[in-house]
Amino acid sequence: MIKVVILGAGNVASHLFMVFSKAENLRIIQVYNHRKEKLKYFEDHTNTTNNISDLKPSDYYVIALKDDVIPEVVENLKDRSGIVLHTSGAVNLTVLECLSNFGVFYPLQTFSKNRPVDFAEIPVCIEANSAENLEKIKKLALEITKDVREVNSEQRKALHLAAVFVNNFSNHLYTLGAEICEKNQVDFSILRPLIKETASKIESLAPKDAQTGPAIRNDQKTIEAHLRLLPNKNKDIYSILTQSIQDFHGKKL
Amino acid sequence: MIKVVILGAGNVASHLFMVFSKAENLRIIQVYNHRKEKLKYFEDHTNTTNNISDLKPSDYYVIALKDDVIPEVVENLKDRSGIVLHTSGAVNLTVLECLSNFGVFYPLQTFSKNRPVDFAEIPVCIEANSAENLEKIKKLALEITKDVREVNSEQRKALHLAAVFVNNFSNHLYTLGAEICEKNQVDFSILRPLIKETASKIESLAPKDAQTGPAIRNDQKTIEAHLRLLPNKNKDIYSILTQSIQDFHGKKL
Repeated sequence: MIKVVILGAGNVASHLFMVFSKAENLRIIQVYNHRKEKLKYFEDHTNTTNNISDLKPSDYYVIALKDDVIPEVVENLKDRSGIVLHTSGAVNLTVLECLSNFGVFYPLQTFSKNRPVDFAEIPVCIEANSAENLEKIKKLALEITKDVREVNSEQRKALHLAAVFVNNFSNHLYTLGAEICEKNQVDFSILRPLIKETASKIESLAPKDAQTGPAIRNDQKTIEAHLRLLPNKNKDIYSILTQSIQDFHGKKL
Repeated sequence: MIKVVILGAGNVASHLFMVFSKAENLRIIQVYNHRKEKLKYFEDHTNTTNNISDLKPSDYYVIALKDDVIPEVVENLKDRSGIVLHTSGAVNLTVLECLSNFGVFYPLQTFSKNRPVDFAEIPVCIEANSAENLEKIKKLALEITKDVREVNSEQRKALHLAAVFVNNFSNHLYTLGAEICEKNQVDFSILRPLIKETASKIESLAPKDAQTGPAIRNDQKTIEAHLRLLPNKNKDIYSILTQSIQDFHGKKL
């Protein structure tokens, strides 16, 4: 049985806790968080502590905390022989290099409270300080997903950036779409099939081949009508994305 | 049996042709397009013509042509007693007002060549010159979808604009994400589960409640690191969307 200690009690930590708990060959032996009150949920299921000196000996220490606090936490793990993993898209592997055994375990997905995800489909990007540890981390990842990928720190940072575009920014465009609906007394639900199809399309088409709309058609009349309809605060977003589509696809403005 | 003539041979026309063909109580009696060579596919299935004076008498004339040519086509339909429908998100109902019976039949979806869509889930926005015709158009729409909505011209234009945000612009963000992957020798497929989940989330959450990422956390360190990684041409897009997320959610920059 592989023993795991989770450090953190936020969204990523909670989702990892749930999926690790279900894995056949893993056991979460402890959850750490510096704020005791955040440990309430975990107390019913495993040992918890808010004192980082009290961590149990374990095969893995999985850090699912804010990027900023990782270096400080790592300082407190120096004597541990288990493999210490961080789960961040943006933090270099080298932040862990004062340790003996370390690596990265970055699940490329968006986690929201109270929304379960199917981990089996989630790519987990792994990196390690040695070939041997890489194999071990791979084994850990395969306990929860089919999709394990070796990704170096530079690639992971690029992926994290790409994720901001396809996830955070797309979601904000949905928010702006919802705002337009609301202002015009139309139920936002009417856009859901379109949003779903937009995302599904790229299962079979490269996104550049799936591009449609007034920008790629260079339909100036529609573009101008849209700009007139938009509140000032959103005109720039419309213009800059229209321009970017036209630049990317080699259209003249 | 309801008789339908389709005017147009592009993406929307082709998808409407396919779904109308399958409907129990409809018959497509003719497809018109001014360029004969575009009618090839339809010739095997129904009567076709490239002469607009040769249109057959029909219950419906469904115009699925570029917005710009609608007024000219309408001129040629003046003597028709059937209901003339346009399928555009951006064109006012009034463009048809020289006719006797007219309306709008706007399927809110993105159509790509060779990609079948499940019409039953697609909202069709309808509008008409009379209550009686509205009922008839509703009946037509219900032949192909469960989701028929009465939407006036102003609302439809707003929806068309919202669709540009959630569909065209989101897809372009996928394209930029794919570009980042390519530059870093990572397979774009790794982002697909994230894209899928981003779109699925809003089935159960309002998009504003699903927002995550460095912008809403006001994580300046990550934002700055991302800006350093980006090529110049995409820095503005990143900044303007980050700013918009922070403005929307009331965060200080």
